[in-house]
Amino acid sequence: MGLSRRDLMKKAGMAAMGTGFAGLTLSMANSAIGAGEQTKIPDLPWPYKKLDPAAVAEAAYAGFYKGACSYGVFESIVAPLRKEIGFPYTMMPSTLLVVGQGGVADVASLCGSLNGAASAIFLVTGGMDKKPREAAYAIIQDVFLWYEQTALPDYRPKNPKYEIIKSVSGSNLCHVSVSKWCKASKFKSFSKERSERCGWLTASVAKHTAEALNKYADGAFKMAYPLSAAAQACRSCHDKGSTLENTRGMSDCGGCHFTPSMKQVHPKM
Amino acid sequence: MGLSRRDLMKKAGMAAMGTGFAGLTLSMANSAIGAGEQTKIPDLPWPYKKLDPAAVAEAAYAGFYKGACSYGVFESIVAPLRKEIGFPYTMMPSTLLVVGQGGVADVASLCGSLNGAASAIFLVTGGMDKKPREAAYAIIQDVFLWYEQTALPDYRPKNPKYEIIKSVSGSNLCHVSVSKWCKASKFKSFSKERSERCGWLTASVAKHTAEALNKYADGAFKMAYPLSAAAQACRSCHDKGSTLENTRGMSDCGGCHFTPSMKQVHPKM
Repeated sequence: MGLSRRDLMKKAGMAAMGTGFAGLTLSMANSAIGAGEQTKIPDLPWPYKKLDPAAVAEAAYAGFYKGACSYGVFESIVAPLRKEIGFPYTMMPSTLLVVGQGGVADVASLCGSLNGAASAIFLVTGGMDKKPREAAYAIIQDVFLWYEQTALPDYRPKNPKYEIIKSVSGSNLCHVSVSKWCKASKFKSFSKERSERCGWLTASVAKHTAEALNKYADGAFKMAYPLSAAAQACRSCHDKGSTLENTRGMSDCGGCHFTPSMKQVHPKM
Repeated sequence: MGLSRRDLMKKAGMAAMGTGFAGLTLSMANSAIGAGEQTKIPDLPWPYKKLDPAAVAEAAYAGFYKGACSYGVFESIVAPLRKEIGFPYTMMPSTLLVVGQGGVADVASLCGSLNGAASAIFLVTGGMDKKPREAAYAIIQDVFLWYEQTALPDYRPKNPKYEIIKSVSGSNLCHVSVSKWCKASKFKSFSKERSERCGWLTASVAKHTAEALNKYADGAFKMAYPLSAAAQACRSCHDKGSTLENTRGMSDCGGCHFTPSMKQVHPKM
């Protein structure tokens, strides 16, 4: 069978612009024959369009019951961008974010909703270079500190399975966040109510993350949740440039150290 | 400018097979015009080929100094798969994993090398469905527990900047892992030696992860690092199905609770 030049171009979806591959349409550029550069996954940050935080929250709640907390937050932000922008979001394997479930693979380390939020924030603001890396980290740290200091969940889904009370975690860890809520609510850590609470929490974190990203897109993002005065006092002896300089991080110390129930005593200074 | 049919096909990298787009070569199939199905990102797990753990370790050490701990581990595993297998690894935006740096965005929560390892493991063994999800989680939990219980770093790069001593973290957290090493080594938490230690650690975690994935590929993976007897004793009152059932997770409790220096006392039972 023979194909004329015209047939080939037609088959390729090309308008006959007579300039070869320089004349590809925009939609073609991402998947065209010979368009190696265009099919290459672009560097971070990927383009962002402002999102509707309430819609993001509802999507995150639904996403939680599909792929858990981390996937719930990440995909609630990536899905509308995939719909609005298309490539490269069409190439993002969001299922990878399922792994953040229950503090990564049910280990109960870093809260999955925060791990998912961090990835979503980095995807649209971060990069390998110092400048975007630090810009993304500032947003992420602010979301993490908001999470530690705020009575959550603060978003009630439109059609919840149960009503859920709030608690303050004082920590970014799944284990601490869950146990503090169990203590406040009297529900067990493997109860359906605790699971629902994590659904609401996923929605709350997704909404707050979308709001932070919208502010960043407007050039109006400012860190709003500084470390507590107590944690800053700890850091004066333990953080960078201090006498001891034996720790690092950006988190409330009181979530683990010197909690009242543990009768913990600080070593003599 | 005019392009002949031959020129067009040549430009498209096509062998002149005379069957139009049905005659695309395999490498073309992933980026070809009209090949919508092939350009869709495939479901997890992605295909895996057994890796050379020593080569992975060296790549991870180099990757640490480019994109930090999480990126170092993840890309040391993904890069050889991208080279060997091509698509879909060519579409994976590995820079996203930079965000795991220093326990996510320098927050010092979950150790970035473990966060990167978890993502790499899930990418090649996990998925949305229960079966691959649980298979991946078993490997991830075993890597996390190995990390907690083992004197690390246990891989010495070929051309290190400094010599590095080992320590046992008893925890999967960046903050705890770093502070325990600082105590053991007498180096400060923002020193160049501590940074080098995290480079060695990145290499160690990457090597161990590649070894676990190679075993899994051979159908020979078995969990080898159970929770400590002490942690299992804690869980008999606090975990799923217990009297209190007020926690969840898969981690040594003693990394944070009842550490000797804190003179912590368990509440009366």
